[in-house]
Amino acid sequence: MFHKILIANRGEIALRIIRACKELGIKTVAVHSDVDKEALHVKLADQSICIGPAPSAKSYLNMKAIISAAEVTDADAIHPGYGFLSENAEFAEICANCGLTFIGPTPENMRLMGDKISARQTVIAVGVPILPGTKEGVHSAEEAKKVAAEIGYPVIIKATAGGGGRGMKVVHSPASLPNAFAAARTEAQAGFGNPEVYIEKYCEEPRHVEVQILADKHGNVIHLGERDCSIQRRHQKLLEEAPCPVLSPELRKKMGDCAVAAAKAVKYTSVGTFEFLLDKNNNFYFMEMNTRVQVEHPVTEMITGVDIIKEQIRSAAGLPLRFKQSDIKIRGHAIECRINAEDPVKFTPSPGKINGYHTPGGLGVRVDSAVYDQYTVLPHYDSMIAKLIVHADTREEAISRMARALDEYIIEGIKTSIPLHKRIMANKDFREGNADTSFMEKLIL
Amino acid sequence: MFHKILIANRGEIALRIIRACKELGIKTVAVHSDVDKEALHVKLADQSICIGPAPSAKSYLNMKAIISAAEVTDADAIHPGYGFLSENAEFAEICANCGLTFIGPTPENMRLMGDKISARQTVIAVGVPILPGTKEGVHSAEEAKKVAAEIGYPVIIKATAGGGGRGMKVVHSPASLPNAFAAARTEAQAGFGNPEVYIEKYCEEPRHVEVQILADKHGNVIHLGERDCSIQRRHQKLLEEAPCPVLSPELRKKMGDCAVAAAKAVKYTSVGTFEFLLDKNNNFYFMEMNTRVQVEHPVTEMITGVDIIKEQIRSAAGLPLRFKQSDIKIRGHAIECRINAEDPVKFTPSPGKINGYHTPGGLGVRVDSAVYDQYTVLPHYDSMIAKLIVHADTREEAISRMARALDEYIIEGIKTSIPLHKRIMANKDFREGNADTSFMEKLIL
Repeated sequence: MFHKILIANRGEIALRIIRACKELGIKTVAVHSDVDKEALHVKLADQSICIGPAPSAKSYLNMKAIISAAEVTDADAIHPGYGFLSENAEFAEICANCGLTFIGPTPENMRLMGDKISARQTVIAVGVPILPGTKEGVHSAEEAKKVAAEIGYPVIIKATAGGGGRGMKVVHSPASLPNAFAAARTEAQAGFGNPEVYIEKYCEEPRHVEVQILADKHGNVIHLGERDCSIQRRHQKLLEEAPCPVLSPELRKKMGDCAVAAAKAVKYTSVGTFEFLLDKNNNFYFMEMNTRVQVEHPVTEMITGVDIIKEQIRSAAGLPLRFKQSDIKIRGHAIECRINAEDPVKFTPSPGKINGYHTPGGLGVRVDSAVYDQYTVLPHYDSMIAKLIVHADTREEAISRMARALDEYIIEGIKTSIPLHKRIMANKDFREGNADTSFMEKLIL
Repeated sequence: MFHKILIANRGEIALRIIRACKELGIKTVAVHSDVDKEALHVKLADQSICIGPAPSAKSYLNMKAIISAAEVTDADAIHPGYGFLSENAEFAEICANCGLTFIGPTPENMRLMGDKISARQTVIAVGVPILPGTKEGVHSAEEAKKVAAEIGYPVIIKATAGGGGRGMKVVHSPASLPNAFAAARTEAQAGFGNPEVYIEKYCEEPRHVEVQILADKHGNVIHLGERDCSIQRRHQKLLEEAPCPVLSPELRKKMGDCAVAAAKAVKYTSVGTFEFLLDKNNNFYFMEMNTRVQVEHPVTEMITGVDIIKEQIRSAAGLPLRFKQSDIKIRGHAIECRINAEDPVKFTPSPGKINGYHTPGGLGVRVDSAVYDQYTVLPHYDSMIAKLIVHADTREEAISRMARALDEYIIEGIKTSIPLHKRIMANKDFREGNADTSFMEKLIL
């Protein structure tokens, strides 16, 4: 097992990893930008090192500074969290070359599954259903029009190197295709340094359902069931739950088997997520794989009892999985609300000083957050300041529990998405389990 | 189901009940003494009523004021929590006479099982093992000496109406018996308004192991396994865990069956706990029954997934249990640390203003507390200000999780028992599961 892990991240995920390390008896090194010196991950780690100024490119994405920090602190592994360098195959390679274990999949896994086109080709080979679309990049509006005509409108244009909704354009008719194509390429270039895009059939009002997998370096792969992440705004998830309210055990098994088969096919060796679209006829289509831990992993932890971060660390250390597929039992229902520092109606960021902070407690309530009273939420980074997670016997009870936990949560001095989540908890469609990815567009704010 | 419940209590248990009511869609009424108007249970209830001045006898034990509060707020039930009026049969009767449901057992149950002598007689009748001792009150030092000689020293003198360690005296030889007898009677009179005491064989260095039961008004009774509450100081529990680290499944079943048989014999109708002593040879002896919810109920909730307060409310409303014995599966290990506002070495109370408060979070961590930043812990009431509860796959992981959660817990401005609990987590005997009721005496502070 590792003796010291450097956490190349900030915020709640850095804290999540520090907590797992403490429980495993592993020392931790926090890295931080100069504006982050009062951050909780810095306070709770055994050691901390400033790796550069506020802009991420100069600190949390600064590979050289991070590797140096690991070397001077004598860390033997680096956990990248999510975002930042977590899906950067080059960084994983540099870690390996410096004798540091990158806690994540191999660079080959990341390249193969991180590129959406090669990921699609990989899963097709093992029989995973995908939406009709191009198997390779589309390089001109002309070509795009031809492809769209073949697969039928509506279509969606996506960045090959993309994620998080950026560079995605839905097109309903040939007339609007050229502009959308150009815009998608521009956004892809700006967002990911690569303008290449591809085209897929657009599935209308689907659910976003994803399967969590767990793999070790000995060829063992299991899945931990699915999460429903349909409550999104501009392709950014706001709320996740597990299990998916409409999935039958048969469909769960089928999707889980697909994810495990695809992971085995590429000799995957860490935690990862297969994202699917689920249409109204219970057809599912592979979208993409995330080769890292996800923001929403806690809902899966709550219903399976598996500590995903600890398993990820164990797996990276070469230990075999402690669970067989048959050991995984789903118990109850879990919901996660992402609490963002933003206006709950306009969705504009609301950084600033927290002046009054009290977290909810009691049975079935979990708070993953790196903020505290008098902490200043910075404008430089993602606006998510906390994840409020509840677990209960049934979905109905979980909703009631979330509603009362949201009522108890006090965050003063800044605006947050708590009022938005209270409205979602009270919404009839959500309560009845009918929310698909169009939910937020229909929600009257 | 009830439409509105009055909670005749304060502190964390009042909050615990409010949370359960909110999740069940039941309105709540908080009652409070004049010094408690800033208490969190007052802030979180739907309504609140001041029932008198600070001394408990004039407020939280003031039956007339509480019944009036229930009547003016149109509550249809009263939850007494633990302590205060929770085991007062007369209060339960008054509630019934006023058309209010007392959320607890029947007055008959409370009288029969609340009196230690009749409780002993009841359980003997269904074959539950007890320590040798008097079946009735002992009224003179002379008689006490005779009894002690018969059952053999060491013996323990206990208040018939007692609980919580008050009025208990261990006697190792005839010479010290008269003084101990007199002292026990004096304490019994002062503490419970009744000087009567009885005598039992004293079991040396036992574990305190108790079985949680759940009963409804339809004759169904199940148990939820046991809790080990051996870490005590002066008969006051400091830390509880579930399951008991040394109990075999066979012994668990045997103790559980005893508790269920005794509860059925008295037609018990609510939640309750059978407390046993477990000696080093795995013999167990009934001590007493608590006819109320206990402080340490959360550890059982964590390992069984059963919300004990919700079940208690449902049962009081006449609903049948939602679980059969075979539905109850123990999952993982849970530990609760009682966080008291007291000097962690001298055990002297440390009331005062909290000036800096931050609770631990993350996977498997639960905080049940009614304090907040800038809240003033009052000298009038019990010093327990929070319960920190963790749940993990194994006992070892639960200890690691508790240690890291204690590290994260910030309570400034007053002294607390957090440093004491950190020492317990690091203690070899505790870690190895060897702690019995003599643990605290042996712990070098």
